[in-house]
Amino acid sequence: MSQGKRVVLASRPHGEPKPSDFRLEEYAVPVPGDGQVLLRTIWLSLDPYMRGRMSDGPSYAQPVPVDGVMEGGTVSEVIASNNRAFATGDIVLSRAGWQTHALSDGKGLTKIDPTIAPISTAVGVLGMPGMTAYTGLLDIGKPQAGETVVVAAASGAVGSAVGQIARIKGARAVGIAGGKDKCAYVTNEFGFDACLDHRDPDLAAKLKEACPKGIDVYFENVGGAVFDAVFPLLNAFARVPVCGLIAHYNDTEAAAPKWAGALMRNILTKRLTFRGFIVSDFAARHGDFIRDMSQWVREGKVKYKEFVTEGLDSAPDAFMGLLKGANFGKQLVRVGQDRP
Amino acid sequence: MSQGKRVVLASRPHGEPKPSDFRLEEYAVPVPGDGQVLLRTIWLSLDPYMRGRMSDGPSYAQPVPVDGVMEGGTVSEVIASNNRAFATGDIVLSRAGWQTHALSDGKGLTKIDPTIAPISTAVGVLGMPGMTAYTGLLDIGKPQAGETVVVAAASGAVGSAVGQIARIKGARAVGIAGGKDKCAYVTNEFGFDACLDHRDPDLAAKLKEACPKGIDVYFENVGGAVFDAVFPLLNAFARVPVCGLIAHYNDTEAAAPKWAGALMRNILTKRLTFRGFIVSDFAARHGDFIRDMSQWVREGKVKYKEFVTEGLDSAPDAFMGLLKGANFGKQLVRVGQDRP
Repeated sequence: MSQGKRVVLASRPHGEPKPSDFRLEEYAVPVPGDGQVLLRTIWLSLDPYMRGRMSDGPSYAQPVPVDGVMEGGTVSEVIASNNRAFATGDIVLSRAGWQTHALSDGKGLTKIDPTIAPISTAVGVLGMPGMTAYTGLLDIGKPQAGETVVVAAASGAVGSAVGQIARIKGARAVGIAGGKDKCAYVTNEFGFDACLDHRDPDLAAKLKEACPKGIDVYFENVGGAVFDAVFPLLNAFARVPVCGLIAHYNDTEAAAPKWAGALMRNILTKRLTFRGFIVSDFAARHGDFIRDMSQWVREGKVKYKEFVTEGLDSAPDAFMGLLKGANFGKQLVRVGQDRP
Repeated sequence: MSQGKRVVLASRPHGEPKPSDFRLEEYAVPVPGDGQVLLRTIWLSLDPYMRGRMSDGPSYAQPVPVDGVMEGGTVSEVIASNNRAFATGDIVLSRAGWQTHALSDGKGLTKIDPTIAPISTAVGVLGMPGMTAYTGLLDIGKPQAGETVVVAAASGAVGSAVGQIARIKGARAVGIAGGKDKCAYVTNEFGFDACLDHRDPDLAAKLKEACPKGIDVYFENVGGAVFDAVFPLLNAFARVPVCGLIAHYNDTEAAAPKWAGALMRNILTKRLTFRGFIVSDFAARHGDFIRDMSQWVREGKVKYKEFVTEGLDSAPDAFMGLLKGANFGKQLVRVGQDRP
């Protein structure tokens, strides 16, 4: 009986998660029962939403229980199968979490075709982050040719896709990212029209300059200072899909943002739309997403960047880094080797 | 040459408008030139949006200039015509404003068919307020059978229509109004499932009781304490069409509402939709509105209540009262007698 490794939630963080909120454990790799498959994790995806799962405040999802395995999407290989739908060697998208091995009854597993793109993209540009960008931007943001789309975390998995899809639709894409290197990448590689450093004390003025015709779509995934800079630039009829507020995930109290007193008035006078969503709200669009995004990736119209740390042990540090923007591209943990 | 009367904006109010912000003037009734018609005002509609026109802050509309005639929708009679499209005796919907007589080149005038309903409804249930209710509720709020719709100013022109249309669509309608008499009218005559007094210090608790399954659509036309009570009761995927904030129209500074720090977080975690609108955004729906609403009024499914003050001189007081909820039903000023 071989040993596996997993990361569990040791305690609920107050504010910023710290190393002691996680615990690395060994466990006996389980044996699949009737109808079950045994999965070996190859890629673990780390995503900002996981911060929410560590807390037990009200949310759209159940929190991870204390001592429970941290949640997460994985790209895994079937290494033993008692389920006729899956064969040994199949590569699947799973919610196996932060662990090397997991059992599954097959529900919720999706087979990945490794001939379309590298299998890691199933948790990136062709997976949840890509679909978050696709549905939030197209179904809520609805950018029109000539409009201006702004997105933060623009070098990340979601933000990079948002800007590139905006460009495909003929809109101007303005990104916000942390630091010169990321900004250069966002404009040079992802082809955004402009990218600004959120640490720049003149962010508001520079954003105004980068958006001479105002902002028609603000894809909200960060909140904080970026929203403060964006808010006065929103045009009449602007749309704000809200899919994340990473700047606030470690907040210990709900501070009233500086625009708070003006928000409803501006929603009224500018006829703004604010709409929160999570990707599963648009499950019916999965086929469209896969069709369009696969084609765009094949044609080189949507590029992606991965940021890989090695080994499950690296996951807690990588995740804490992600919340501070230490990653440069889609944050992945290589938990096990890809198939030869 | 006969004399007309008009009310002009004497000064921009700071906070609550006061009598000296208005000035009643006499003027020579003009003579229509080539292509023009002369209108005699029968009904002047008073509506909360007019408070916005008195200020010169940023808005979706131009303010009334100081010394300019106060804006407003009217039901008027053509009493002289040099325009082939209009005959003497035609009753028209116009934006003639707070005055007894006005010239028009015919643009923007809509003929009213007096056989459909009393002509005053053209500025009420079959006019702008009715269409505001219809489009905001159906196109943004999208109430489903069994859902709960909440609207304030429920005895007013917009609120009463919102609740009655919600009932037609199979939703539960909960109104909020000022005082026992209005609340009784809202439930007994307009058929709402419940109505609460916004002055009740226990409003939040009573609203919770009246909405045992939470709130799916909040038609926002007031803001203030009502929004504070509504906010925690909003269900996942709730929709909030924002068409007015009458509780704040006299605010001299933008106070951060108590829920401000939680608004964006709730938009995200509950996947709420907030969308501001004005009725002209849905101009394409005018035909649908007239078809449906005329039928509902004829069938008695949508009732309306008018609150009439007599004579143009009464308009400033009536308007100041409207902002405080002194009206009981759609606020109208009878400026001139209806045709015999």
